Amino acid sequence: MKKTLLACTLMLGCTTLAHADPLSAWNDTAAKASIVQWVQNSTKQGSTTFIPKDKRYVVFDNDGTLWPEAPLTFQIQFILDEVKRQAPDHPDWKKDPLVNAVLNNDLKTVVKAGDKGLMKLLAMTHSGMTTEDFEQRVASWLANHKDARTDCRYDQLGYQPMRQLLDYLRENGFKTWIISGGGIDFMRVMSQKMYGIPPEQVVGSFALGEFSLTDNGTQIRKTMTGAFNDDAANKPVAIHLFMGHRPVAAFGNSDGDLQMLQYTAANPDYKTFGLIVHHTDATREYAYDSHPPASGKLEAALPEAKAKGWTVVDMKQDWKTVFDPAQCPVK
Amino acid sequence: MKKTLLACTLMLGCTTLAHADPLSAWNDTAAKASIVQWVQNSTKQGSTTFIPKDKRYVVFDNDGTLWPEAPLTFQIQFILDEVKRQAPDHPDWKKDPLVNAVLNNDLKTVVKAGDKGLMKLLAMTHSGMTTEDFEQRVASWLANHKDARTDCRYDQLGYQPMRQLLDYLRENGFKTWIISGGGIDFMRVMSQKMYGIPPEQVVGSFALGEFSLTDNGTQIRKTMTGAFNDDAANKPVAIHLFMGHRPVAAFGNSDGDLQMLQYTAANPDYKTFGLIVHHTDATREYAYDSHPPASGKLEAALPEAKAKGWTVVDMKQDWKTVFDPAQCPVK
Repeated sequence: MKKTLLACTLMLGCTTLAHADPLSAWNDTAAKASIVQWVQNSTKQGSTTFIPKDKRYVVFDNDGTLWPEAPLTFQIQFILDEVKRQAPDHPDWKKDPLVNAVLNNDLKTVVKAGDKGLMKLLAMTHSGMTTEDFEQRVASWLANHKDARTDCRYDQLGYQPMRQLLDYLRENGFKTWIISGGGIDFMRVMSQKMYGIPPEQVVGSFALGEFSLTDNGTQIRKTMTGAFNDDAANKPVAIHLFMGHRPVAAFGNSDGDLQMLQYTAANPDYKTFGLIVHHTDATREYAYDSHPPASGKLEAALPEAKAKGWTVVDMKQDWKTVFDPAQCPVK
Repeated sequence: MKKTLLACTLMLGCTTLAHADPLSAWNDTAAKASIVQWVQNSTKQGSTTFIPKDKRYVVFDNDGTLWPEAPLTFQIQFILDEVKRQAPDHPDWKKDPLVNAVLNNDLKTVVKAGDKGLMKLLAMTHSGMTTEDFEQRVASWLANHKDARTDCRYDQLGYQPMRQLLDYLRENGFKTWIISGGGIDFMRVMSQKMYGIPPEQVVGSFALGEFSLTDNGTQIRKTMTGAFNDDAANKPVAIHLFMGHRPVAAFGNSDGDLQMLQYTAANPDYKTFGLIVHHTDATREYAYDSHPPASGKLEAALPEAKAKGWTVVDMKQDWKTVFDPAQCPVK
């Protein structure tokens, strides 16, 4: 042991002497084994399924894959909270039945307003301000709101097994990216702290900004121009546009991730890995499948996962812990 | 010396014992000194102008900044060559006066067709095919065409001083990005090899792809939908969208880079650096300014550079060599 310590001190490359399990929040089931096996096969020089380091790009959905999406996606919750926060400054909003529904917590009416209603609320809360101002609003919302069910802040609710998986992949030379239907500016506020993923590796729904000079500098003002919904068939398009590589692994939880999984699985050069987080744990998180909350529909992707050999994570069986007890103790 | 070698062997961190000049293609003029001084001040721990490593994002224009843009930008040359290559397979194209102008090298008529004509030629050569097919076309064009003036392949014409500057910045912990009006898929074919910049750090003009399943996999087909021209005021917008950081240095050569330079200079957190490559060398490259080729107009940016203390590189005075003699010997 002493000798090892000395060798490590001199070589600097050794970071861990003890071999702590990097996936300790996972139970020792087939799901965990499939991950470890693929990573080992992909990174062992000389292996027939070796993937060179500069090709190790992996993509993760966010809502329902890295943090919860129930009962509403957290960004929808942000939108509702923002409308409430801003309403006093906009007396004219009161005339609007949709805003009134938000103010009265009448989610039924909000849901009924459909995509058109959502776009309207998005425009009210995600456009008009500078990018810096928007970032501050999200940061302030995160600091001052809690998820009702867990009584934890939203940025404390990253799934511990998935955060460990991100670390594990990075330790093995993989570049971890988020490809999500969530807003790109919204997610970038918490991605570094929650997942160790820097802004430029976070891709989401976006609209174009508008640049201008100000009295003492420059600004980019958020608009709704060129709005791009980074979901379903748009996910591979966004991967190509932002990342410019075909991924070697994809991690999702819903039909909105199916095309990203298909695009990854069809990588002609490497043995790829696909994984779907299946929400089966009504006690510790939520159980849903064909009757999902928000965007969590999982109908087409589940049979395709079985047909193509993608790993399906049964949250109840496969995860030892869901949330990091140090961040969000189980109630 | 022996002691240093031993220390370096043990510590591994030392990579160069000899102190070769990393900017040997630059003359020892004020331009070079300004670069070295800023890099040293930005990277010296404890300096009042120190920039933490995770904030060292720097952005480069491509056409006219990293490689020539005269007499036409190289991508326009690609478009013309592609129309000629494809024309025999499209007999109907012959009826089109614009295509005929291309086939007859009648550039006057092509230029007269303006932006509308350019968009038409772009659509003919940059949409309809899969992304992989497009990449192959660009690679094949690069392999089989030469710049008329130098008789070198286009991908041999990266400016040696700028390529050294990219290396020098990376060695000092800076993340180098391209932010160019050039096509994103076009530039990504050569950016790694020419500049050591991977696809995900290359941002350019783009349009959205269209994803679909095929008999044996998936494809993304290039379209003209949502075309975004990554020039002028759109450059800071693209920097925010793709990179998500305010740069600490910006390098350009024309008025199309002005807003990117302004956005960088207005970074509220750090002492930034701006640089403009001024084409003053009619013998080794081109001399132009207010009567530029292609997109190289430099009217507003030059006085602003002087007012704001950005470095203006006088190519003739400041560069020892323009092209790497090992790649493209001076004729």
